[in-house]
Amino acid sequence: MVAEIIAVGSELLTPRRAETNSLFISERLESVGISVRRKMVVGDREEALAESFLSALERSQVVLLSGGLGPTNDDITREAVARALGRPLHLDERILAQLRERYRRYGFEMTENNRRQAEVPEGAEAIPNPRGTAPGIFLREGEKLVFLLPGPPRELNPLMDSEVLPRLRRFLPVSRQFSRQLRVASLAESALDDRVGPLYQAYPEIETTVLSSLGIIDLFFHWRGEPDESRARGRLGRLVDEVRAELGGAVFAEGPEALEAVVGRELAERGLRIATAESCTGGLLGKLLTDVDGSSRYYLGGAVCYSDELKQSLLGVSARTLADHGAVSAETASEMAAGACRLSGAEVGLAVTGIAGPGGGSEEKPVGTVFFGLSLEGRVRSKRFRLPGDRDSVRTRSARMALDWVRRALA
Amino acid sequence: MVAEIIAVGSELLTPRRAETNSLFISERLESVGISVRRKMVVGDREEALAESFLSALERSQVVLLSGGLGPTNDDITREAVARALGRPLHLDERILAQLRERYRRYGFEMTENNRRQAEVPEGAEAIPNPRGTAPGIFLREGEKLVFLLPGPPRELNPLMDSEVLPRLRRFLPVSRQFSRQLRVASLAESALDDRVGPLYQAYPEIETTVLSSLGIIDLFFHWRGEPDESRARGRLGRLVDEVRAELGGAVFAEGPEALEAVVGRELAERGLRIATAESCTGGLLGKLLTDVDGSSRYYLGGAVCYSDELKQSLLGVSARTLADHGAVSAETASEMAAGACRLSGAEVGLAVTGIAGPGGGSEEKPVGTVFFGLSLEGRVRSKRFRLPGDRDSVRTRSARMALDWVRRALA
Repeated sequence: MVAEIIAVGSELLTPRRAETNSLFISERLESVGISVRRKMVVGDREEALAESFLSALERSQVVLLSGGLGPTNDDITREAVARALGRPLHLDERILAQLRERYRRYGFEMTENNRRQAEVPEGAEAIPNPRGTAPGIFLREGEKLVFLLPGPPRELNPLMDSEVLPRLRRFLPVSRQFSRQLRVASLAESALDDRVGPLYQAYPEIETTVLSSLGIIDLFFHWRGEPDESRARGRLGRLVDEVRAELGGAVFAEGPEALEAVVGRELAERGLRIATAESCTGGLLGKLLTDVDGSSRYYLGGAVCYSDELKQSLLGVSARTLADHGAVSAETASEMAAGACRLSGAEVGLAVTGIAGPGGGSEEKPVGTVFFGLSLEGRVRSKRFRLPGDRDSVRTRSARMALDWVRRALA
Repeated sequence: MVAEIIAVGSELLTPRRAETNSLFISERLESVGISVRRKMVVGDREEALAESFLSALERSQVVLLSGGLGPTNDDITREAVARALGRPLHLDERILAQLRERYRRYGFEMTENNRRQAEVPEGAEAIPNPRGTAPGIFLREGEKLVFLLPGPPRELNPLMDSEVLPRLRRFLPVSRQFSRQLRVASLAESALDDRVGPLYQAYPEIETTVLSSLGIIDLFFHWRGEPDESRARGRLGRLVDEVRAELGGAVFAEGPEALEAVVGRELAERGLRIATAESCTGGLLGKLLTDVDGSSRYYLGGAVCYSDELKQSLLGVSARTLADHGAVSAETASEMAAGACRLSGAEVGLAVTGIAGPGGGSEEKPVGTVFFGLSLEGRVRSKRFRLPGDRDSVRTRSARMALDWVRRALA
């Protein structure tokens, strides 16, 4: 089963607005083994949208549209699809009542334009949208399945899980519903493929996809064999076990969990608190740790010490160390990590100092050279890496590699 | 003149790979007044690509394709376009010689497959690519202009400026080449439009586009009138002057400069150094400041104080203040800002403390409540805002709003 995604909205054709709903949608589709064949972004013009929609419907079994369902005149998705399929729009009284109640609750009057959101093409099903006014729409056209979804991610994302996937599953052959995911950190893609390739190649009925992004690699395994549930589960389980055995501690999650959430959970379970000491990452390490809601349970805070003076006064790095080894060195990283513990009382201190570039590199310490320091219950360690990429890549890789070191040290 | 963009590559259909070349391409097209009508992402299948290409060519005057020009078998853009247009591929001897030299220099042997990169459709022009092996290709099909560009941004981006735009300009009416940009911070889009709408509506020959993203609004002005250079420059200049006069200090840049770069430049010019004290942003403020290469000239560092204890021990926030007013309060923000200066010796101290959510809100201080503190050469101020959106939005808006406050305070 293949799908196409059409994102609707003139703002998505402008330079500063990336179309990202399709990433979430394809991730969820991938989780049930449906792959995306083509993506399109079209503006708020009914004719262009109708044409794109019909060509997608001709090619693919599933078509998902996001955006353009709101109450204003440039919201044209509902009308374009209805007209393209020759299905008149009908008012859905249940949705209308929900809309009226919603507007009342927020003290707004419901205008004529707002009523449009309760219109549904003939034979289609309205999908209630608890986080917004515009409901989603599901319809079947012959063998084809069509979903119209609201554009805001906070409305679309929950509907994808609670409404779209269950409907898709009804039409999927059983075999397509089995997949597994492993997430791996601090390993180069080529090194991973050398080790894991021979394993998954022995399972031709499982499709393996390897996706790498700035220090994190995702492995997806999809059952493509005959639709036999117990065989699918058994073979997938065996392959996953083999890959885990080969990669050992490099695997940090089964499923989509973020590295910073895994590290946070491990810290919380052990009752450990962490503090950070950052130079080249400039606060990114703390930002990642606090991306997780509830991170105050284990993250105390830390110091961003861009200047050498602050490394001394805040973190207690010695002048001698800075003079003898430089701010980017194993010795400085170690003292920074120890300093983070000292100033905060945390059991874990994590430090990063490096040269993110583009300036500042030398023969001995080229751009991309990063030192990490880790103080764990009194024991202090350091390590050195040379990371590829531009300033942004080096900083992101550094922060993730630092977090992953904590995870491995706790294992 | 309208354009369509086709990104080629099966990896761009996977969940974790956003298609971003089109953002750069449309920004550059916008700079000469060409707007993008549609974008497509297709996998490495010749038939699908040929179909998408021909439909784009039928609709639009300019078609740009990125990716799929390399030497391997899944690089199919060159062949797909040549075949779709019925133009045989010819070997370009000049490009072949450059390729041979390039491979020799890096000590590789040039295989038969690599020769494919020197093939060009009949009547097309090869565009040398100094940063990679695959050249770009430019061809005219009747009135239509077609560009094939390499996929890696470090190869594509320079070619866009040095090769694509000059060729497009030859075909553009002079009038389309005039545009201006203003960037605005800390203003709601609706408030901005109320103030600025009446101004730009008086210039019907100028197309005004308003783009808003988490606290930053971009205004683009494109000349759409008759092709008269001095009139275009004069009218654009007058409108920009009027908008600047209306918005005053809310405008932080003319052109694409980032807020953090503007703030950094202002600090450096005044010889001021800044330190940060962050709670809810968890390091994001420091991260933004250090996104700028060379930020060590004015950014000393700071403290991420997620816990109340660290707010006291590191930043000197008093236990009394925390008990009486809470960690999220004007008083705490002020003491944090003063503390950042004290611990670092910086002339400017910037603090953020708030409730990013989803948890932690109360009736008095709901999620999105953020207090900012600013210490500038000894004088300490604070302010309170209620910011909309989810955890990520609140944090990003907070960090940008804090930076913008520094900029305004220095003005």
